[in-house]
Amino acid sequence: MINRLYFTSNNKQIQQHAFEAIKEEQNTIGYYALPEQDITPVSAYCQTIPEEIRTIVVIGIGGSSLGAKAIYEFVRPVKKLKRKLYFFESTDPINITTLLSKIDLKTTHFLVISKSGTTVETFSIYKYIYSLHNDPKAYTFITDPGSPLEQYAQSIQASILHLPNNVGGRFSVLSTVGLVPLALCGIDIQALLKGAQVVKESFFNEGYLKDTLLKKAVYYAKNHAQYHINCLFAYSESLKYFCEWYVQLWGESLGKHQRHSAFHVGLTPIGLIGPKDQHSFLQLIMEGTRDKSVTFIKIEDFNDRITIPDITLPHLESLDVLNGLPFEKLINMQCDSVMEALLNEKDIPIDSIIIPKTDEENIGSLIFYYELLTSLVGELIDVNTYDQPGVEAGKIILKKKLEDNIQKLEQKNSG
Amino acid sequence: MINRLYFTSNNKQIQQHAFEAIKEEQNTIGYYALPEQDITPVSAYCQTIPEEIRTIVVIGIGGSSLGAKAIYEFVRPVKKLKRKLYFFESTDPINITTLLSKIDLKTTHFLVISKSGTTVETFSIYKYIYSLHNDPKAYTFITDPGSPLEQYAQSIQASILHLPNNVGGRFSVLSTVGLVPLALCGIDIQALLKGAQVVKESFFNEGYLKDTLLKKAVYYAKNHAQYHINCLFAYSESLKYFCEWYVQLWGESLGKHQRHSAFHVGLTPIGLIGPKDQHSFLQLIMEGTRDKSVTFIKIEDFNDRITIPDITLPHLESLDVLNGLPFEKLINMQCDSVMEALLNEKDIPIDSIIIPKTDEENIGSLIFYYELLTSLVGELIDVNTYDQPGVEAGKIILKKKLEDNIQKLEQKNSG
Repeated sequence: MINRLYFTSNNKQIQQHAFEAIKEEQNTIGYYALPEQDITPVSAYCQTIPEEIRTIVVIGIGGSSLGAKAIYEFVRPVKKLKRKLYFFESTDPINITTLLSKIDLKTTHFLVISKSGTTVETFSIYKYIYSLHNDPKAYTFITDPGSPLEQYAQSIQASILHLPNNVGGRFSVLSTVGLVPLALCGIDIQALLKGAQVVKESFFNEGYLKDTLLKKAVYYAKNHAQYHINCLFAYSESLKYFCEWYVQLWGESLGKHQRHSAFHVGLTPIGLIGPKDQHSFLQLIMEGTRDKSVTFIKIEDFNDRITIPDITLPHLESLDVLNGLPFEKLINMQCDSVMEALLNEKDIPIDSIIIPKTDEENIGSLIFYYELLTSLVGELIDVNTYDQPGVEAGKIILKKKLEDNIQKLEQKNSG
Repeated sequence: MINRLYFTSNNKQIQQHAFEAIKEEQNTIGYYALPEQDITPVSAYCQTIPEEIRTIVVIGIGGSSLGAKAIYEFVRPVKKLKRKLYFFESTDPINITTLLSKIDLKTTHFLVISKSGTTVETFSIYKYIYSLHNDPKAYTFITDPGSPLEQYAQSIQASILHLPNNVGGRFSVLSTVGLVPLALCGIDIQALLKGAQVVKESFFNEGYLKDTLLKKAVYYAKNHAQYHINCLFAYSESLKYFCEWYVQLWGESLGKHQRHSAFHVGLTPIGLIGPKDQHSFLQLIMEGTRDKSVTFIKIEDFNDRITIPDITLPHLESLDVLNGLPFEKLINMQCDSVMEALLNEKDIPIDSIIIPKTDEENIGSLIFYYELLTSLVGELIDVNTYDQPGVEAGKIILKKKLEDNIQKLEQKNSG
């Protein structure tokens, strides 16, 4: 991948400070080591799933689903995959019923993914599906060693895989959480990790991405009071779920109380898909408040050569400029045109990421690039990038509501 | 629908000014009159499409597709529809190829929607599809009277429908643009319009929504320097595309130069789906910068009674509080819990919209509610709500690139 910045950022000292902090973090934060992991255990596990299994279902939410979905949906349109992959990630009853109607329980294997085993969404869905299909062999549980969920899985003699240490949900896609469902579908997980490794090496071993990532992170941090909305404008429908993954990574990591102040800080992520969102969000970037930076993502080779045919439509001759143009060239010209228009405004920070083609290695690179960028910006805006204390309050209220509800039911039954 | 505001807004004079301005706008802006339109022409047109047609395809982008998609995807999970509906709205070649592989050209009718007939995306796709299937009877063109596109359609003797006067793309869903594809699929468009009419009457005839909408609009306008990000947190997967429609409506209408100043202003829309995005974006709302308002949308009756079964999982007994709970009750408890948690913060403006059930009338109400709110806020922040000058610059650059490309090709061919 190539990353070009169209803004200047020269604060060597802060850059060096951030680089040292991130090097240091490798000792405590687990995701940095994932690119080099030995995938033998994942491959061995995949061998245990019978060929008759045609569908893999992930029951998980947030960090347990978004990463695998991003990669699956990126690769799927260009690669004949071995199995289909579905995600149950909502308590919306219509959504559950609709998804269930698409799968054949007899040829489906379920991956239940939860660190502790107490995620309300995951276990309300699991209970429902298990009541329809109570065959422990149809389930694998991915959880923390020693968790109550592991004990449950042992009690029904289902398969268990472990989450690695010190890897938070939103940084876990390159661990068992993402690798297992992806490998089961025939995604080349070794290539995925290789892509991540290339970025990691370029950053830590003084390659070209070190300079770019540091400049970008320092710029975002220093200017975060003005440019606090970060738009990712990806010119490919296949990056739609990558954008959702990015939104979680960025929002949940960087929207925090500062460690050493009482300030609320946060960078707001927005995922956009071109050219569609030229007809939706672009007006706001172009003429709205100057609070947005934009990163364009372009794919050079779509691996699809369809071309606009050389036909003239009477009365619409002005459209003949399109004739003979491959769609992949058109979509990239659209991206370039919007980027130029925004650059002409002079006060919108722009950068572009160009990835050569749609494959596992490239999405692996993109993922690790964004993980590193998030860690750098988190360090520079003085937040704990890896926790999410803000989501606890709602969970506590829900627990209270559920307990009150049970009490009411019990009173009713005994009354 | 019920809309409850959890913030106070008492500026009777500004409210009255906005109300008068919007009443006045009815004379010039076309969308206000759409709820009362006579749908006989749409129904008559639909009768001309043979029963053998199993699939409707919209070739259109932005305002030509987002509204119909929002309604179709909302109603589809709960209603057996007559035909399938697809949208070609990207120049991404893989997306075009994938969508084409899902349809049978022989039993498909195409709706090509464009005001002028010069939208690059729409006509590059149309040319491609027409080269595969050049039967004029398979196409209907929806365009402005007298446009070059109408002339083209006449020249090939294809069906033509007109766009109504003074209705911009993003306000056009309740016109032919949305009604035709939806009616062809068996969506009850009369109920859709009725839902819109209920909201319209409640607003203009001094009903309860007048007060609520005015208070909300004035609050958003007066506080737009602080709360300039507006999150729509909808607790139903079926509102996912409604959120995309909202993002276009809000962003493209309100991100502008002010009419009477040199300021860039803008309110940034964010669409969220619960409970999924509790595991993604919620942390940022809860602990990030205080620049976000949140509107929760809840559906009371999902029309799906699936229930969490009454089973105890060994070692996971704490989850028994979920037992016996209908999923539709759980998802709404999740919504209430997050809303309470955010209200406890005291400095996040919250409101809730409750819609009784998933049907045409309710989505019609929701659409018209948001159109009115957008018009009100646009008036109050002093922008032209109905234009989108900011998207022109990129189009001009693209046109130049396309012409240069053609010249290069011609030189090559003659050289």
